Amino acid sequence: MTENNQPGNNLDPWYSHYAERAAGLRASEVRALFAVASRPEVVSLAGGMPFVSALPQDLVINAMDQVMVKQGPTALQYGSGQGVPALREQILEVMALEGIQANADDVVVTTGSQHALELVSKLFLDPGDVVISEGPSYVTAMVIFRSYQADVDHVPMDEHGMIPEALREHITRLKAAGRTIKLLYTIPSFHNPAGVTLSWERRLEILAIAKEHDILVLEDNPYGLLYFDKPAPDAMRSVEEDGVIYLGTFSKTLAPGFRTGWALAPHAIREKLVLANEAAVLSPSSFSQLVISEYLATADWKEQINTFRGVYRERKEAMLSALGEHLPQLEWTNPNGGFYVWVTLPEPLDSKAMLPRAVKELVAYTPGTAFYGDGNGRQNIRLSFCYPTPDQIRLGIRRLATVIDGELDLLETFAGTGKLGAALGTTQFTSPPPNVS
Amino acid sequence: MTENNQPGNNLDPWYSHYAERAAGLRASEVRALFAVASRPEVVSLAGGMPFVSALPQDLVINAMDQVMVKQGPTALQYGSGQGVPALREQILEVMALEGIQANADDVVVTTGSQHALELVSKLFLDPGDVVISEGPSYVTAMVIFRSYQADVDHVPMDEHGMIPEALREHITRLKAAGRTIKLLYTIPSFHNPAGVTLSWERRLEILAIAKEHDILVLEDNPYGLLYFDKPAPDAMRSVEEDGVIYLGTFSKTLAPGFRTGWALAPHAIREKLVLANEAAVLSPSSFSQLVISEYLATADWKEQINTFRGVYRERKEAMLSALGEHLPQLEWTNPNGGFYVWVTLPEPLDSKAMLPRAVKELVAYTPGTAFYGDGNGRQNIRLSFCYPTPDQIRLGIRRLATVIDGELDLLETFAGTGKLGAALGTTQFTSPPPNVS
Repeated sequence: MTENNQPGNNLDPWYSHYAERAAGLRASEVRALFAVASRPEVVSLAGGMPFVSALPQDLVINAMDQVMVKQGPTALQYGSGQGVPALREQILEVMALEGIQANADDVVVTTGSQHALELVSKLFLDPGDVVISEGPSYVTAMVIFRSYQADVDHVPMDEHGMIPEALREHITRLKAAGRTIKLLYTIPSFHNPAGVTLSWERRLEILAIAKEHDILVLEDNPYGLLYFDKPAPDAMRSVEEDGVIYLGTFSKTLAPGFRTGWALAPHAIREKLVLANEAAVLSPSSFSQLVISEYLATADWKEQINTFRGVYRERKEAMLSALGEHLPQLEWTNPNGGFYVWVTLPEPLDSKAMLPRAVKELVAYTPGTAFYGDGNGRQNIRLSFCYPTPDQIRLGIRRLATVIDGELDLLETFAGTGKLGAALGTTQFTSPPPNVS
Repeated sequence: MTENNQPGNNLDPWYSHYAERAAGLRASEVRALFAVASRPEVVSLAGGMPFVSALPQDLVINAMDQVMVKQGPTALQYGSGQGVPALREQILEVMALEGIQANADDVVVTTGSQHALELVSKLFLDPGDVVISEGPSYVTAMVIFRSYQADVDHVPMDEHGMIPEALREHITRLKAAGRTIKLLYTIPSFHNPAGVTLSWERRLEILAIAKEHDILVLEDNPYGLLYFDKPAPDAMRSVEEDGVIYLGTFSKTLAPGFRTGWALAPHAIREKLVLANEAAVLSPSSFSQLVISEYLATADWKEQINTFRGVYRERKEAMLSALGEHLPQLEWTNPNGGFYVWVTLPEPLDSKAMLPRAVKELVAYTPGTAFYGDGNGRQNIRLSFCYPTPDQIRLGIRRLATVIDGELDLLETFAGTGKLGAALGTTQFTSPPPNVS
């Protein structure tokens, strides 16, 4: 029976026809923000768009023209479900920069590394399974896990990344509760949103824990090459071949508009990933792959990554110095790479409740709650320094300081009256946010 | 417990970790064929690759260069999960050629229409659900349906497409068995693989049946604009807005290498499709979308479709005349558009068993069994005329005639001995193939 036949208030006549998993597909908080933050007068510290204008367009135009001249019909045609062989060889060179030795036969090119996340989830997640991830974690990974009816269990982090002892405790508790843990999802380098990096010792320890408990590690590494002072420790995949699916992408080191990323998987899993990729898109874009392959073959791509590093380093420094100047009472992480700073507000400020007031002051950020599946994160905000210029960043932080100072004034005014929570719209934490400082 | 701990013969240490649905992801027969047929000495009548060389490369290069000059940073950036607004408007013009009136707000751009099939299936199919489709049907649609643990129920066709009376019977039987029918998947125009077109009267009748039984219609129309003599009847979506998800693509009218297609969906479903698209790939390729949008705005794209029509018409005629000359004892469809001829072999030839002998004679085709989920199709083969030249097509059909004549000689030799089936490796039909002639 459909909603049509019921005294219903739902306007979708197909309401009763959706699969159970469709209930897990909800709009993320970040998504709603994009609409708000796209107004030109708003300084957005919310999005995660790379600054593609730092890529000389000639490099891209040359690569395109060469591809069309040299192999136009191939670029315009369907390709292999696994990806262009020459590009898969070049991807080995990219991964070698983070210590990974692999065979091109185990690389599967995907429509951004986002689609690799989707394919891995489709292959592995049954309803009721658990994915362990850092808390906080990447929003759209959690959307995918939930869309396959899996639960996300957040393990806390500190300034060295996920805490191994906490991971052990969570596994013990989940197993005692009879839960099936399918994946350990981690962003070890320049974490989104926390901005911290998992130490080498912890990488080894977490791999050992995963192996001991027969849990497949899903290592998501979009930012690894975008370090500021010194490289992150080598990838977890560099020491563990059979227990890790590694995800990489050209979205941050080249451009997201081509939608080209990859998975490096244990051999047997790779075969199934290719089948899943073929079912989903037949083949990733031949055109995008060949343009990237030509770019890697002819341009100084390592120097281009250096250029991006310089751009993002300058922006991070602008953000941290503005935070120090205007908001010294806050705590924040000091990322050595990537796109994000994770800020902890003074209690009892509520990042989600405060957002409309921030937008009114023409600055946008992402509230910490977006990065948890369990209501945590109200005391945190993620600030992105990737896209706005240093001047815009300084302006944005000044505006944010106006908002936060206003909230804190209100806090003082209501201090001791018992009406503070109501005034600020806060709710109680159920567990502490990660100890990032 | 994993396979590791068992006395196993499976080489995949993660064997026991896959989701149940992963069992449905099997390599299709067509996939295995691609490897065989890619040897240059083999004339392949097996694949479905469009003849992209009929597209003047200058048109594509000009569009790319213009995009990079006019809006390079946008082309290189992430975009909206629903797709570029200007392109969605242009897609309305494309669909208007087949009688569709719609709002650009209900169009969702996808990574080829294949990915729209995947997203719709993810949104609607629970394990055990049924998808009704023509028998035979598009291979990789069935792979997707099965990957979401749905069963495919094949309704027979004749030369006017799916038979409405048969559809009614199948629905009655499925409902009596307590099954949930979620989708009616159809390729009404220039069907893959059958080459037939659903008549206008039947389009209306099948829409009425679907409405009566509250079944959502999934209209897949990759070939509609590639007619030879006269257009196909208007799209089913042109008369029914709320009950149809319509899928279109630029893969056949422009080029598949851009991986750009679309879904036109009832409004409430469209919202969920966008969420599913964002979860899967964040956004479809901005670059591909802008290049196509520029091409549609500046090139004579309707004349280009005319050029493709001429190319494919000539190839179809070459194929049918070669079939008439060399294999007059066979039956085949006479498509008025699209890429495929569906051939019925004389009993008891077995298209699957015969394939290795055909490849030995340097001609490849797709056995009919690939297009059924139930073992049917052994008496059929799909011949593609889209990619090979007319000369290659004639050569391929001559080689095919050598193979079939050899099989029929064998048949005569063994006639009356009772050993025929064993000699040819056939199995009995469990139900008749579609009556296409």
